[in-house]
Amino acid sequence: MSLGEFSVSDHGITFAKGYRASGTAAGIKRSLRPDLAVVTSQLPASAAGLFTTNRVRAAPVEICEELLRSRPTEARGLVVVSGVANALTGPAGLEDSRRVIELSEQALGLPKGSVYHAATGVIGPRIPVEKVASHLPSAVEALSFDREAATKAATAILTTDTRTKEAAVSVRLADGTRARIGGMAKGSGMIAPSVGPPHATTLAFLTTDARVSPTGLQGLLNREADRTFNMISVDGDTSTNDTVLAFANGAAGGALSDDDPALARGIGFVLEKLARAVARDGEGATKLLTVHVEGAADVHEAREAARAVASSLLVKTALFGADPNVGRIACALGYSGATFDTGDLDVRLVDGQKQWPLILRGTPAPGLDNGQGHRLHAILQRMEEVVLDVQLRNGPAQATAWGCDLSYGYVQINAQYRT
Amino acid sequence: MSLGEFSVSDHGITFAKGYRASGTAAGIKRSLRPDLAVVTSQLPASAAGLFTTNRVRAAPVEICEELLRSRPTEARGLVVVSGVANALTGPAGLEDSRRVIELSEQALGLPKGSVYHAATGVIGPRIPVEKVASHLPSAVEALSFDREAATKAATAILTTDTRTKEAAVSVRLADGTRARIGGMAKGSGMIAPSVGPPHATTLAFLTTDARVSPTGLQGLLNREADRTFNMISVDGDTSTNDTVLAFANGAAGGALSDDDPALARGIGFVLEKLARAVARDGEGATKLLTVHVEGAADVHEAREAARAVASSLLVKTALFGADPNVGRIACALGYSGATFDTGDLDVRLVDGQKQWPLILRGTPAPGLDNGQGHRLHAILQRMEEVVLDVQLRNGPAQATAWGCDLSYGYVQINAQYRT
Repeated sequence: MSLGEFSVSDHGITFAKGYRASGTAAGIKRSLRPDLAVVTSQLPASAAGLFTTNRVRAAPVEICEELLRSRPTEARGLVVVSGVANALTGPAGLEDSRRVIELSEQALGLPKGSVYHAATGVIGPRIPVEKVASHLPSAVEALSFDREAATKAATAILTTDTRTKEAAVSVRLADGTRARIGGMAKGSGMIAPSVGPPHATTLAFLTTDARVSPTGLQGLLNREADRTFNMISVDGDTSTNDTVLAFANGAAGGALSDDDPALARGIGFVLEKLARAVARDGEGATKLLTVHVEGAADVHEAREAARAVASSLLVKTALFGADPNVGRIACALGYSGATFDTGDLDVRLVDGQKQWPLILRGTPAPGLDNGQGHRLHAILQRMEEVVLDVQLRNGPAQATAWGCDLSYGYVQINAQYRT
Repeated sequence: MSLGEFSVSDHGITFAKGYRASGTAAGIKRSLRPDLAVVTSQLPASAAGLFTTNRVRAAPVEICEELLRSRPTEARGLVVVSGVANALTGPAGLEDSRRVIELSEQALGLPKGSVYHAATGVIGPRIPVEKVASHLPSAVEALSFDREAATKAATAILTTDTRTKEAAVSVRLADGTRARIGGMAKGSGMIAPSVGPPHATTLAFLTTDARVSPTGLQGLLNREADRTFNMISVDGDTSTNDTVLAFANGAAGGALSDDDPALARGIGFVLEKLARAVARDGEGATKLLTVHVEGAADVHEAREAARAVASSLLVKTALFGADPNVGRIACALGYSGATFDTGDLDVRLVDGQKQWPLILRGTPAPGLDNGQGHRLHAILQRMEEVVLDVQLRNGPAQATAWGCDLSYGYVQINAQYRT
């Protein structure tokens, strides 16, 4: 797909110039699936990041924040372990993560303070540092610029996910430079938006060869994550490990692009694609739910309204049952905190060019109790992405949130006793 | 059970002097189960109420608020329909509810403005007023002071509930008067606490023969509902119809008891018993979850922390799987908004006199990964009420919240397409 100078690629984290990646199995997961991802930049990169607002923070989150504060222009690498979160591990957990970073820097031949680190998995257990140490040489050996390496890295960061999540785009900057942006994410459970200062949900990593300052990159990330990663929900549980990290190594050359709208658009595209992929791959999900709210008093209320519908258990179970349950949608809007008059409320179900009214001026659309209800039931059954358009008629603001249905699979995945 | 002057009864809404009740089937529910409950007071009663904070409010909620404002000392009756919520019904719905009240006043021979009204059920459809009209005479005919009539009324207000919820207690007031308090509630889904001003969740009705002013009764209700009904959660969805109504008819005689601590304790007992019963009967629930938080900075933070754990989908599914998953408990506490240091956190599982540590000073209790984990799994499997004691070590405040597990049954109940 090419939108003028905006060119979407099916590539991933190694799309931008100067980035290599690998994904290998270090035996952290009992399943022996890949669980160690490494990404490196040939040039020192500007770094920026967003982290969970949870008070219980995993050790890697603490360490990344410290690195961003002290050395935001010297990022050269990233090491991600999946299988253990390294949260609730006290001072020993901090020591483990520091050791993983130190071992990675040695194996990569990189200076101290240049390697970032993230973890995802079970809360409580410690990282098996010796396993990581013994597998780092092969992880470094496997580093590659190619497309396949990106997917291997994207596979190694997964936990309960059922598919990899990658995105890539190239954009023409104001000075004519063509810059590339690539990314990968993981996330399936313990996923929720949070109000408050910008922050991240799940793990997501972005690389670009644009030349951007750490402050410029942080600003872009804040704005674009707020309308993407902060607008998805699977279960309402904000994780201890949520991390979004971005590197910009300047390998594309050109001028400093901190305020370039094309770059902002590119980063926004990658984040939105990854965020939607996380929502669609929610634990047990069979459908993606997109809720678009218009006519809110302000952006905050628009977001609250969209998020409330996308997060409601009653809406999510109705969706799983393909039930056009208008009462549950209105109920969620009503407790969202957004201001509106019930008599002004419209809700529509959208499928491409077609749309069907569900609520018109505060009452159910005609026929929902019988014939039209059955038709919508059949339509919902075959939809893989369900789009709800909400009109509050209370102002100029709009927002979109993404969620998924709640199925028996969700209960099964999360009720299993981990032996 | 008798605690000095505090005597718990297994009675219900007709326990206090001067109250009659009935529960009959008017054909509002397609199942032909009882769906019309009537309660009357022989004497005009003080009335007080708490209502949903949802912006989308059912017609009966609007009408009750208006009645409480205009005639708070003349309450004589209550008519409850179950099967339809009479929400999202616009001006026609308001007209329907006014007509139900008018018909009830006529059938009961009571003055205008003396009958209150509540509804619960599907959002969208209108009340079949003619069915109610044709069954009101037999509902009035069936009114009785006896124990059985209380249970019939408590049955007629149920929807997806699997059992009736009744409570009763008698207390000795400061002036020596023995006052009685009875109550009934319904609630199984669309149940969530909400922050903000005092409000109610689910339907709950209290009757007492104590002599209390409307203002005094409202104050008692606010305080006691805030630590009981506002502390339960089944699914996080705050309903359009939530209503707690209390009548005080003074039939016991004695002095005005607005500030009587024994009366407050009695009302608190009835509300807490009903609230716990609603949580335990959550849709698909197999276990009651009680979360007690101590050491919070203030009561607000204590409540937020307790509610977050009791509401977390990941904690609720772990509970269904009897998984002693300490990470999910810590995660919920971390995003609750309560302030604490992870290194100060203790969590214990309590079963009567016995208790087992789950988290000690911010790390999992020893052995949870193997032997002790298996033992706790077996213990959780047989527990019907799971009690978690949380110590935040950050202040003097405490609070308790109630929830339930999340099972396949929840998904089944809520994913069924209503034909």
